[in-house]
Amino acid sequence: MSPISIFFNRFHHHRRCCNLSPYLRKYISTCSQSEPIEVNLSHPIYMIWGSNTGVGKTLVSTGLANSVLSIPNSNHFNYIKPVQTGFPTDSDSRFVYNKVLEIFTQKKLLINLFAENHALRGSVSVAKEFFGFEIENCDGGLRELCWNEEKRIGGDVQEGRDFTSKLVCKMLYGWKEAISPHLAAERENAFVEDSLLLESLQKCLMYGVGDEVGVDKDLWTIIETAGGVASPGPSGTLQCDLYRPFRLPVVLVGDGRLGGISGTISAYESLKLRGYDIVAVILEDNGLINEVPLITYLQNRVPVLVLPSVPQDESNNLIEWFDESQDVFHSLKERMLDAHQQRVCRLQEMPKKARDIFWWPFTQHNLVPEETVTVIDSRLGENFAVHKIRKCEYITQQFDACASWWTQGPDATLQIELAREMGYATARYGHVMFPENAYEPALRCAELLLEGVGRGWASRTFFSDNGSTAIEIALKMAFRKFSYDHGVLKFPDENAVDKSFEFKVLALSGSYHGDTLGAMEVQAPSSYTGFLQQPWYRGRGLFLDPPTIFISSGCWDISLPKGLQSIKLKLEDTTFSSQSELFSESRESSDLAQSYSTYISQQLLLFSESEFSHLGALIIEPVIHAAGGMHMVDPLFQRLLVKECRSRKIPVIFDEVFTGFWRLGVESAAELLGCLPDIACFGKLMSGGVIPLAATLATESVFDAFKGDTKHMALLHGHSYSAHAMGCTAATKAIQWFKDPVRNRNINAEEKKLRELWDAKLVHEISSHPAVERVVALGTLIAIELCTEGNDTGYGSVYATSLVRKLREDGVYMRPLGNVVYLMCGPCTSPNVCSQLLRKLHREIDEFSRIKAKRLRSCSVELAHKTDLPTASVTTIALLLNG
Amino acid sequence: MSPISIFFNRFHHHRRCCNLSPYLRKYISTCSQSEPIEVNLSHPIYMIWGSNTGVGKTLVSTGLANSVLSIPNSNHFNYIKPVQTGFPTDSDSRFVYNKVLEIFTQKKLLINLFAENHALRGSVSVAKEFFGFEIENCDGGLRELCWNEEKRIGGDVQEGRDFTSKLVCKMLYGWKEAISPHLAAERENAFVEDSLLLESLQKCLMYGVGDEVGVDKDLWTIIETAGGVASPGPSGTLQCDLYRPFRLPVVLVGDGRLGGISGTISAYESLKLRGYDIVAVILEDNGLINEVPLITYLQNRVPVLVLPSVPQDESNNLIEWFDESQDVFHSLKERMLDAHQQRVCRLQEMPKKARDIFWWPFTQHNLVPEETVTVIDSRLGENFAVHKIRKCEYITQQFDACASWWTQGPDATLQIELAREMGYATARYGHVMFPENAYEPALRCAELLLEGVGRGWASRTFFSDNGSTAIEIALKMAFRKFSYDHGVLKFPDENAVDKSFEFKVLALSGSYHGDTLGAMEVQAPSSYTGFLQQPWYRGRGLFLDPPTIFISSGCWDISLPKGLQSIKLKLEDTTFSSQSELFSESRESSDLAQSYSTYISQQLLLFSESEFSHLGALIIEPVIHAAGGMHMVDPLFQRLLVKECRSRKIPVIFDEVFTGFWRLGVESAAELLGCLPDIACFGKLMSGGVIPLAATLATESVFDAFKGDTKHMALLHGHSYSAHAMGCTAATKAIQWFKDPVRNRNINAEEKKLRELWDAKLVHEISSHPAVERVVALGTLIAIELCTEGNDTGYGSVYATSLVRKLREDGVYMRPLGNVVYLMCGPCTSPNVCSQLLRKLHREIDEFSRIKAKRLRSCSVELAHKTDLPTASVTTIALLLNG
Repeated sequence: MSPISIFFNRFHHHRRCCNLSPYLRKYISTCSQSEPIEVNLSHPIYMIWGSNTGVGKTLVSTGLANSVLSIPNSNHFNYIKPVQTGFPTDSDSRFVYNKVLEIFTQKKLLINLFAENHALRGSVSVAKEFFGFEIENCDGGLRELCWNEEKRIGGDVQEGRDFTSKLVCKMLYGWKEAISPHLAAERENAFVEDSLLLESLQKCLMYGVGDEVGVDKDLWTIIETAGGVASPGPSGTLQCDLYRPFRLPVVLVGDGRLGGISGTISAYESLKLRGYDIVAVILEDNGLINEVPLITYLQNRVPVLVLPSVPQDESNNLIEWFDESQDVFHSLKERMLDAHQQRVCRLQEMPKKARDIFWWPFTQHNLVPEETVTVIDSRLGENFAVHKIRKCEYITQQFDACASWWTQGPDATLQIELAREMGYATARYGHVMFPENAYEPALRCAELLLEGVGRGWASRTFFSDNGSTAIEIALKMAFRKFSYDHGVLKFPDENAVDKSFEFKVLALSGSYHGDTLGAMEVQAPSSYTGFLQQPWYRGRGLFLDPPTIFISSGCWDISLPKGLQSIKLKLEDTTFSSQSELFSESRESSDLAQSYSTYISQQLLLFSESEFSHLGALIIEPVIHAAGGMHMVDPLFQRLLVKECRSRKIPVIFDEVFTGFWRLGVESAAELLGCLPDIACFGKLMSGGVIPLAATLATESVFDAFKGDTKHMALLHGHSYSAHAMGCTAATKAIQWFKDPVRNRNINAEEKKLRELWDAKLVHEISSHPAVERVVALGTLIAIELCTEGNDTGYGSVYATSLVRKLREDGVYMRPLGNVVYLMCGPCTSPNVCSQLLRKLHREIDEFSRIKAKRLRSCSVELAHKTDLPTASVTTIALLLNG
Repeated sequence: MSPISIFFNRFHHHRRCCNLSPYLRKYISTCSQSEPIEVNLSHPIYMIWGSNTGVGKTLVSTGLANSVLSIPNSNHFNYIKPVQTGFPTDSDSRFVYNKVLEIFTQKKLLINLFAENHALRGSVSVAKEFFGFEIENCDGGLRELCWNEEKRIGGDVQEGRDFTSKLVCKMLYGWKEAISPHLAAERENAFVEDSLLLESLQKCLMYGVGDEVGVDKDLWTIIETAGGVASPGPSGTLQCDLYRPFRLPVVLVGDGRLGGISGTISAYESLKLRGYDIVAVILEDNGLINEVPLITYLQNRVPVLVLPSVPQDESNNLIEWFDESQDVFHSLKERMLDAHQQRVCRLQEMPKKARDIFWWPFTQHNLVPEETVTVIDSRLGENFAVHKIRKCEYITQQFDACASWWTQGPDATLQIELAREMGYATARYGHVMFPENAYEPALRCAELLLEGVGRGWASRTFFSDNGSTAIEIALKMAFRKFSYDHGVLKFPDENAVDKSFEFKVLALSGSYHGDTLGAMEVQAPSSYTGFLQQPWYRGRGLFLDPPTIFISSGCWDISLPKGLQSIKLKLEDTTFSSQSELFSESRESSDLAQSYSTYISQQLLLFSESEFSHLGALIIEPVIHAAGGMHMVDPLFQRLLVKECRSRKIPVIFDEVFTGFWRLGVESAAELLGCLPDIACFGKLMSGGVIPLAATLATESVFDAFKGDTKHMALLHGHSYSAHAMGCTAATKAIQWFKDPVRNRNINAEEKKLRELWDAKLVHEISSHPAVERVVALGTLIAIELCTEGNDTGYGSVYATSLVRKLREDGVYMRPLGNVVYLMCGPCTSPNVCSQLLRKLHREIDEFSRIKAKRLRSCSVELAHKTDLPTASVTTIALLLNG
C-alpha cells in the first residue's frame, strides 16, 4: 500500500475540533495578539531548506528523526511543516510520521515510540475534502482542521505511561493544489498573513519545551520549508525573508543533479544574504559527484555530506535506503548538535570575554557587571535579537530604542535590500580611491545629497568617515572662507597672516559636535572636555546659552537662559499649542524675536570688544541638542543667530549629523529653521545605519576659497576611505528609500515630511506625569527628562538605571543620557509600534516613580522618627530640597 | 532531418587548420601572452546566464540574433559559446546558426544574410570524433578543431560582395560528455586554464570591432554561458567568478518551472554578489505565472519578460514559437540597447559631473582638467577597470599601484569572499551599538587583534573609524596614563590639576598621523599644518629629525640629520647589504647606537630645561614615514627612542595605521623594530581594504588609568559606528586570510613574514638609475624618489606628473607624493605581477629621464648660444644648480 493510500484511510478517522486533546488546543490559536519572537536554546532547533524543489528535504527530515529517535534514550523529535501544498495528497508531515513508524516496525528497534501527526489548518478546498461537506469560508479562507493521528509501538505499553521516545509531526497550513504556496493561496482564496504564520510557528516551537514536558535533554525540533530557499510563502513573501525573524540555523539540502552545483551555491548565498548560518549542506549522490566542487568552494565554511542515490522505483519503500544512509544522517546530526552547542557556549562566554578585551566607548567598565552586558545575536529592522537567560536560555527581541546611537533607519525590508547592495558594492568596487577619480556610487550619492539635503544652497560634497571628521572639515572650510572674505590672508602668502590672529567660533552651550580635538574645541566646557578627558581642550568659542523649548502637561513652553530672563514676556510668545506654531515664521515679528536679536548683537559686540580673536564661524545643531541631553533649542533664536552672522559675513555651519535624514521628521532640519547654512555636516542615518560615512556639503563660494594654482591652496584633508563605494552605495539606497512614499509609508509626499509618529494623547499624558520634568517629541524622537532627587542630573547620572533595566526586560533596549531617557525609531517605523513603545514607557515610568515615591516615604518616616517632626512635613522638606 | 543529423552531415566536410581563412586564424591563437582584459563599449556585448540548466538560454540567444538581424540594416551579430559539453551532439552555437538560417529561409526575409559557425577547440575525444582518427594529446589535452561552416541566403549574391547582415557563431572549447565542464575536462583529460579561456574570449570580443570591419553601428555580441550561474567552468572555477574580469552586463534567463522563482532569485543574487549588472530577466511561461512574484520582488531593479511556452514536441521546429516570441525578443533587445547606451552616456558624463560636484580631498581642483579624471567602472583584486576613450570607448585594466591610498589587501578571491561576508553581516546585524554590548564580529575581531598585532602586550581593543580618530584616542589614553603614573592628577579630582600644566608629545619630523586637529598637533610643521590649512595648529611636540635609510645603487645607506652629523661614523654602522642586517638587534651595541642614545637624552634634557610642558607620549610611525614621503627611519633610532621613553615612564604610541597588517612584510611593524608599544593604532588594511575601521590597542595598565567609580573617569570618546559589525566582519575575514599560507601564497608560515615581492636585481637597477635619488623597498612597498631639477621637491611638486600619466596609459594607476613615486601591492599579490610592474616602472623612468635630459640639452644649447659658452659647460652648470 503506498503512503498516500494509507493516508486516506486514516483520513476518514480524523477527529473534529471539539474532540481535541488539551495540549493540541494549546498550539492552535487564533493568534490575535502579537508576541515577540523567541527562540529557545535549550535544544537544537533547525530549519531544513532546499536548493530546489524535489531535492529530498523530507527524506533528510525523516533521516534525522530516525537518527535522533533510534538511540535508546528519552528522545523527543518535533517535525514541523509550516506550509504544505498539494495537501492532503502530499503531506510531508505524514511522510515523516509514517516512514519513521515503518522503519521502527521493520527494524524491530527495542525502543518505545509514541508518534503523532497533526494537520492544523487548511484552505476551504482542503477542508471540504477533509470533512466531506461544504464549509463556510472563515479566517481569511483558512479553516481549522484540527486533525491528528497517533500510534504507539514498542514494548508493553500501558495507558498514561510515559513513552520513551516521542515523534510529533505537524503541518500548520495546507493548500490543495500542488503549486507554489502563494499561488495556491490565491487560487484557493485562503490567505495567511506572515505575522500569523510566524506566531503559529512560534507556538509550535514552545511545545515540548520547559515545564510542560520537563527539561528534555534530547529534544529536537526540525522545521521543513517548502520548495527552494527563495520560493514564496503563502503571502508572496519569499520564505528566506519570511522566516528571518527566527534566524534558525540551517541545514541546506543541495541538489545532486545536473546544474545542481549552481543551484546549491546560489541557494547558499541567498541564505547568507539574509544572515542565516548554514551548518551543513547535504545532497543526494546522482553520479555527478557534485559534492567535489561544492566541498572545494565551501571549504572552511560548511561541511558537505553525501547521501546514497535514492531509488527511483516508486514501489521501493526506501527502508533499505534509510539503512544505508544511517551513517550520513548520524554525522549530520552530530554536526548539528556540535554547532548548536558551540553557538550556545559562545553566547554564554561572550559577556565575560567582552568585558575582558573590549574597551567600550563612553563606558565606565567598573559600572558594567557581567550580567548587564547585552549579547546581541543579530538585528532585523528595528529589533535586536538578544541572548537571555531566565529559566532557560533563549534569543528574544528588544526594540532598539536608541537606534544604535542614533544611526538606524532601515526596516527589515530595507536591511535585506542593503545586504544585497553591500554584497554587490564589495564585489563590484571593494574600495577605490577618491581624489581625481569618479565612480558611480560616490557620484550618485553626491547628486542625491545636493538634490536633497543640500537643495537650494550646496554645490559641493566632501566625504569623510564620521560626524567628527565632517565637523573638522567644515571648520577648515569656514575659517578659509572667512579669511578669504575678510582679507585675513594676502593670498596666497600665508606667511602674511598676523601671527597673533586667532579664530574662535560662535556656538551654543549644550551643543556637541564630536570627539576629535577640533570638534571638541567648538563646544562649551562640559563633562567631555575636562583635563581628565582631553588635556588639550581650551574651548575656542563664544558660547551663548540658548532658550529651550519643551512639552509640559501637553503644552510647548519656552525656558529662557539667565541672560534673557530680564525680558518681559507675552504669553503668546512663549507657549504654543502645536509644533507648527513653534516653527512658524510669523514669530519673527514678535517682541521675543526683537529681544533675541538685541541679545545676540550685544553678545557679539561684547566679544569683539573684549577679545583679540575673531569669530570665524557659527556652528549649531539645528533645533535639537542631541548628546547634550536632547534639548530643543528655540528655532527662532537659531534663525536669528544665522541672520546676525550672515550680516557679518561669518560662515554658518549646520551640524546635521544627528538631525539630518528625517530624524526630526524632515529630511534636513534646516527646513524646520527656515534658513540655510553655508556648510552642513551629515552622517549617521545618511548611510541607512549600516556603515560609517559622513559628508560635509558646501556652497560654491566656500569651495572657491580653496581654488588656486598650487596644491598648497587646496583643502589638504582626507581619509583613506574617503567616499568609499560601500558607504556611498548604502547612502544612495537609504536616501532614496526614506523619501519614497511607496517604500516608506510614513512619508507625507506632499508636505515632504513624516507623519506624526508619537501619539499626541500619550505624549500629553507622559508630559503631565509628576515624575517627568519635560518632554521633547519631534520626528522619530521622543525624549523625557525625569525629575530627579537632588543633584543627580546630567550626563554622569545613574538615576534612570533601574528604569532602563526594567525596559530592557520588557523588550525595549534603551540607553539613557543621564536622567534623560528617549525612544528613537527609524523614518519607516510604523506609528503602531511607536505607540506600543510609548505605552510601555509610560507604564514603566509610572512604576518607577511609584517605587521612588515609596522609598521617599519610607525615608521620610525614618527621618520623622529621628527628628520628631510629622512625616508629611519631612516629605515636603525632602521634596523641596530635591526639587 | 533533425538539427543534429544536419550537423553531422556538415561535420564531415569540415576544413582542416591548414585551410583556414586568414580572418579565422586571427582569433585562433595559442594565447601565450597575457593581455589586459578590455571591453569595447562601441556596441552592446552581453552575457546570457541561466538560473539553471535547461531554462532556454540558447533559445534566448537565437531570439536575440533573429531580432537584431531581422531589421533591414547592415547588422552583425556575434554569438559566442565559450564552453560546450556534449559536443558535437549538442552544439548551442550550431543551434543558433541553423535556427536563424531556418527562420530567415522560411520567413523569406528580404535581407541578405551571411552566416558562419565555428568550432575552435575540443578535447581529444571530440577531435577523434571530428577527424575520424586517433589524435595525439597536446595543449593540455585540447586540440584545435578549426572547423567552420558558412551559408549565404538572400538576394542575388556575388562572390566577394559584402553581405548586408552577418551572423558569426563560435564555440571556443568543446568536450564530449554532456556533463558539467569541470567533470568533462577531468574525464576527458582536457583542461583549459581560466586565463587562457579569458584570453580566447577576449580575442573573440575584438573580432568585428573597429578598423577590421569598419565601424559597424549595429554590431552585437552575445556570450552564452554553460549551465547555471554558479556552475563550474572547465577548471572548476565557478563561471560567475570566471567571467568576472569582463563584468559584462547580464541577461538572466529565469526558470518558469515549479521551484523556478527561488532558482531565479538565487541566481540573480549570486550574480549581484559578484558585482554584475543584470539588465533583464526573461523566462518561459510554464503556466505557473512565476513572473508575478519575480516582478514584485525585483521591482525597481530589473524588468522581467515572459516568453510563450515552448512546445515540448521534439519534431516541432520552433519557427512558430520564435514568431510568437518576436515582440518579447524585440523588447528585450530594446532594453539591452537602452541599458548599454545609458551606461555609456553615464560613463561619458561622469568626469564633468564629478568635477562639478565633488570636493576631492588633497586635490587642487584647478590642476585637474576634465580629461585627467579617472572614471572607475569597477575593481577586481588589485585591478581597476577604468573607462578610456582612444579610437573608441572601452573599459580597460589598471593596476591600482597606490593600493587605493594604502588600504588594499584583497585579491580577486578574497574580494568575492568579502562580498558575501558583507552581505551576510548587513543581513544579520546591520549595525548594532557597541557600549556595554557584545556581538560576534566585534568580539572575534578584538580577539584576532589581540592574538595578532597586539600579541604579547595589548589586552584591550578600542574601535573607531579611521586612523585619525584612532590617534586622537591613543593620545587621550597616553595623557591619562602619564597623569596617572606621574601623579599629575589627584584622582579623581581633576580640578586639582595645575592650570598651567601642559602636555606635549615626543615625535619625529616627517611623521604624519592624520587630519583631525588632535592628530595634526603631534606632527611637525609642514604643508599640511599652515594657517591656510588649519589655523588652530600649534604643533604640540618636541620634533626630532630622524636618521633615514634608503637604497642607492643596490646598497642600504644611512642619511643623518643635522643634529647627528658631527658623529664619526664607521662604515659598517651605516651601510648594509641586506634588510636583515639593517633590522638586526646586534646594531644596538654599535657606536652609532651610543651616539643615538646620547643625542636623544640630550634633546630630552634640553626640552625639560627650556619648556614648562611635559612630554606625555612618544608617538612614532614604525620604520616608514608614509605620508611624509615614504622615508624609512633608521629602526635602531626608533628602538632607542622607545627605550629612553620607557625609562622615563612616557607612554609609547605606535601609529601602525599604515604599517600594520603586512604592509611592511610583517603583520605588525613592531616586529621589525623589535620593541613593543603601550598603545598602537591600526586601520587601512585591517578591514581588508573595503570599509573604514580603526582600532587603538592598549595594555591593561593603560586601561586601568580610566577605571573609577564614575562615568566621568571613563574614556568619554566614541563614534556612532564604533565597532560596526560590517567593519569587524571584514577585518575578521581579512586578518585571518592574510596570514593563512593556504589562502595567501606569499606567507612564509615559519618566519611569519611575506616573501620578497620586489625582484632584488630590478630594485638594484632602479636604485642605480641616474634619474633616481633613492629607493625604499620593504614588504608590499617600493618607493622611488626622483632626482628633481631645482627646488621642485616635496608634497606640492608636480615633477612626476608626466611620468604618472604615462604609467596610467601603461596600465598602472599611480598617484605620486610630490617627486616620490611608489608601487604598492597587497599582501597576496603574486611576485610575478610585482616584477611586471617594476619593469614597467623602470622602463618609464628611463624614458622620462631621457625626455628630461633632452629638454636640459636643448635648454643648454640655447643658453650656450646666448652666453657664448661651450654647451658642455652650460650643461654642467645647469646640472650643478639643479642637483
